[in-house]
Amino acid sequence: MAAGLPNGDVQPEWQVKVQRKRKIQAAAVKPYLVAAEPGDEDITSINDACKLAGKIAGGELTAYAVVSAYVRRAAAAHEKTNCLTEILFDEALQQAQELDQYYALHKKPIGPLHGVPMTLKDQFDVKGHDTTLGYVGRAFHPAEEDAVVVAMMKEMGAIFIAKTNLPQSIMWCETENPLWGLTVNPMNPAFTPGGSTGGEGALLADHGSLVGWGTDIGGSIRIPSHMNGLYGLKPSSGRLPYSGVPVSTEGQEHVPSVIGPLARSLSSIELVTKSIIDQRPWDLDPKIHPLPWRQDVYEEVQSRPLVIGLLVDDGVVKVHPPIERVVKEVAAKLQKAGHEVIPWNNDGHARCVEIMDQYYTSDGGEDIKRDVLAGGEPFIPHVEKLVNKAPAISVYEYWQLNRQKVAAQKAYLDKWRNLRSLTSGKEVDVVLMPTMPHPAVPHKGCRWVGYTKVWNFLDYAALVLPAGKVDSTQDVGKDGPEVSGYVPRNDLDKWNWALYDPELMDGMPVSVQIVGKRLEEEKVLGAAKVVERILRA
Amino acid sequence: MAAGLPNGDVQPEWQVKVQRKRKIQAAAVKPYLVAAEPGDEDITSINDACKLAGKIAGGELTAYAVVSAYVRRAAAAHEKTNCLTEILFDEALQQAQELDQYYALHKKPIGPLHGVPMTLKDQFDVKGHDTTLGYVGRAFHPAEEDAVVVAMMKEMGAIFIAKTNLPQSIMWCETENPLWGLTVNPMNPAFTPGGSTGGEGALLADHGSLVGWGTDIGGSIRIPSHMNGLYGLKPSSGRLPYSGVPVSTEGQEHVPSVIGPLARSLSSIELVTKSIIDQRPWDLDPKIHPLPWRQDVYEEVQSRPLVIGLLVDDGVVKVHPPIERVVKEVAAKLQKAGHEVIPWNNDGHARCVEIMDQYYTSDGGEDIKRDVLAGGEPFIPHVEKLVNKAPAISVYEYWQLNRQKVAAQKAYLDKWRNLRSLTSGKEVDVVLMPTMPHPAVPHKGCRWVGYTKVWNFLDYAALVLPAGKVDSTQDVGKDGPEVSGYVPRNDLDKWNWALYDPELMDGMPVSVQIVGKRLEEEKVLGAAKVVERILRA
Repeated sequence: MAAGLPNGDVQPEWQVKVQRKRKIQAAAVKPYLVAAEPGDEDITSINDACKLAGKIAGGELTAYAVVSAYVRRAAAAHEKTNCLTEILFDEALQQAQELDQYYALHKKPIGPLHGVPMTLKDQFDVKGHDTTLGYVGRAFHPAEEDAVVVAMMKEMGAIFIAKTNLPQSIMWCETENPLWGLTVNPMNPAFTPGGSTGGEGALLADHGSLVGWGTDIGGSIRIPSHMNGLYGLKPSSGRLPYSGVPVSTEGQEHVPSVIGPLARSLSSIELVTKSIIDQRPWDLDPKIHPLPWRQDVYEEVQSRPLVIGLLVDDGVVKVHPPIERVVKEVAAKLQKAGHEVIPWNNDGHARCVEIMDQYYTSDGGEDIKRDVLAGGEPFIPHVEKLVNKAPAISVYEYWQLNRQKVAAQKAYLDKWRNLRSLTSGKEVDVVLMPTMPHPAVPHKGCRWVGYTKVWNFLDYAALVLPAGKVDSTQDVGKDGPEVSGYVPRNDLDKWNWALYDPELMDGMPVSVQIVGKRLEEEKVLGAAKVVERILRA
Repeated sequence: MAAGLPNGDVQPEWQVKVQRKRKIQAAAVKPYLVAAEPGDEDITSINDACKLAGKIAGGELTAYAVVSAYVRRAAAAHEKTNCLTEILFDEALQQAQELDQYYALHKKPIGPLHGVPMTLKDQFDVKGHDTTLGYVGRAFHPAEEDAVVVAMMKEMGAIFIAKTNLPQSIMWCETENPLWGLTVNPMNPAFTPGGSTGGEGALLADHGSLVGWGTDIGGSIRIPSHMNGLYGLKPSSGRLPYSGVPVSTEGQEHVPSVIGPLARSLSSIELVTKSIIDQRPWDLDPKIHPLPWRQDVYEEVQSRPLVIGLLVDDGVVKVHPPIERVVKEVAAKLQKAGHEVIPWNNDGHARCVEIMDQYYTSDGGEDIKRDVLAGGEPFIPHVEKLVNKAPAISVYEYWQLNRQKVAAQKAYLDKWRNLRSLTSGKEVDVVLMPTMPHPAVPHKGCRWVGYTKVWNFLDYAALVLPAGKVDSTQDVGKDGPEVSGYVPRNDLDKWNWALYDPELMDGMPVSVQIVGKRLEEEKVLGAAKVVERILRA
């Protein structure tokens, strides 16, 4: 209901709801906005979930100590970046105590994730808590049961401490909505942490969580990973269980959204991915393929020289100089270590994106409009533009778009088989490429996600790995002739080029993206391990 | 163009095209409408493709002898049932000679299917031949390349001798279209051979092919298998390559059509399924999951007592007495052999069908209308009814239907996990059930395909296996009180019950359907082998 304001005006109902939600949130955070305790820093600086789980399993740390350290860090990170939505601190601490009791009684952990603190983008159902998706109309409708992936991880001992922010519509590479507000980059509040899994990006970078769960339909896991110096995996659809994860445009099956982990270490990503697959998610989610974890593939790809396709430019929007530098540096190191690096052209990329863009407006924006109108809040400008971009198409036209999609997928698969090493004749194992054409940028700067979304369209497995930083002492300056003299290809390219500012961006993380074919998660993770070893050597 | 008729009327263009197509067909068949040669009967009575391939590989038979025997049988079968569309006799014989030369030179077969004669429902692209789908407008547009599965099988030595008839729209359980006409049941021309892979059903039953390839989106492989005493496999989508197989309502991805084999032996089905999967179809078709042939699953399921769910009645249309008798006989034999048979209820079946039916009209019939109008031929009554049944829905409504679908799929998966044996507590391995509520029926009698299409909706693996025959000496007569006194549940049930006539249907084949979960083809094939051994003992 609407409320009276001091000046006599009536406050809109949506604002009343927003205030109630934020008040509840603030009250739940407040007790934990306290000074760090001794040991907190030691605990939250462990970036590897395997290592942390090992310390708990070995009795060196209690789950309670770990979770309470993380809860304090999460509260602080939230105060700094506005990254959280639903607060689960109290029940997380309760669960930690129960796990410690279990451990005391059985002298062993309950499962491979015993005591590992995790967070969830505010799309994953957690029984008793809202799944808002950033929509006011979804507030105060607590979920009736846990999402399949949440239930599976809880059974293995994971502890969920909070849910995190995302943009209205979820279809954006930044993080803002009228319900929870704007999430900012922990390195610079004038910058976006990326999106749509931006709350996780900010929180993880600030050590307020150890493993974060996001969704990705165009880059939403990989973009905040890239901007915040994190690892992020976007598997193919049908690998990790989506059941119990509401999403915008739910029911569209043309380019499926997928869930995946973000973390500060590759080994954390591997641990949770393998743990879930080992628990046979296909018994619980009808969309999951019965494809066990293939340890042989994971190991084989680490045992020999790889053939790596190097893509630096997608042909639409040219990457900023530090992005190009970092990707090429990684390629050079791989080559030096004995791997074969061959050029990978951008054939097909523009076509895939062109088809994909037609899908976004295929319902005329009706799904998102309904959610926004149900709550009564305003559209954020990016979303308003999206939902009014084009009228709905017919189901028949939609099917024709699907036919174009499958033809483009077939063409790319044929490209992958045919674009071989000229010297060895071998097929490429993985493609190495940028994640975005820029590092983190000021709010509302993010526009081109063609480097990530092409892999959603093709449904290939992709992983993002931190590989460097913008360095104003070595990257070409914004007034250098290479930059100021550049002639943009199109408006998007022009926009991106204008964003470049190595002084302002100095120190911002830069990642590389490692891509395998459809359902080749083990291959991508194995190849990432190879890259990781070389980069950290 | 239109042509002048003797009476001065102008013949519609579509009829001119039909006459041209049929004339070309007749000319291609004619040279092979000859008396059987000595040895033909021996060759075409080998029902097992492994055995036949073994005889060719061992030098006992030439590919040419095999293919020429089959070509003569196919020509005779076509004269009897009108089952063929495109005739590939000449090039098949040419290919057989080339394979014999290969064999003479290399002293070994070119692959596991060397010389095995096959046929294709007129949906599979074969370079240089039309893929008509039974539409006049698609005549005289030869395919530019082979479908992926056709190319793969050719590489393994298979020889395609003809393409076969299907119904207008493909969405029907009988076989008739204005281009090629009506296909009849080889056992009784007043009866339908079923559909939509009805041309294959008639041809294979008459020994005019050894392995036939069909498609199944609601029962189109299983129904003709059932009515003609054949084996037929409907895999889950994503297992066998569909690329290069045009279909009605192409581009719809809500309930995918799948390809699968029909044959006179289980071993033929296994051979071709395994052979294709062993060739990594996921390298060639972007929709195929990288799921190798799981020999361990196939063998394990044959090594122990099975837990079998028995479903006799789907709750909507009750099966005819001989169908019930045969399914229960098979169950009793399995139980006697030491397997556990538990009741399987029909919870969820009506709901799945209800959602599925809404999809059929989601484009307002536009796809099928366009194809029919492009050719100018009339609608057959069944199709006219289908395309005018309901107006198109919006893309947004279509997505809501998908959400209902996924919820129903999840509910059925949970049912499968929970509906366990009360004695052993074990989960059911496979469900044993009828394929249709009736055996072959007179033309235009076929209406209820709920026993098959529920598994397309759920995307589960299902196999049909011949298990008995209508027997007027033991099945209850149509005037028996159990039949004449039956009170139908609804109009569909009433229609089905009125079809029952054990005198007229005497000797018609009856099958059972064996169903496993999604992508459990190896389990279904292994369980079928268990059933097969018991039935043929």
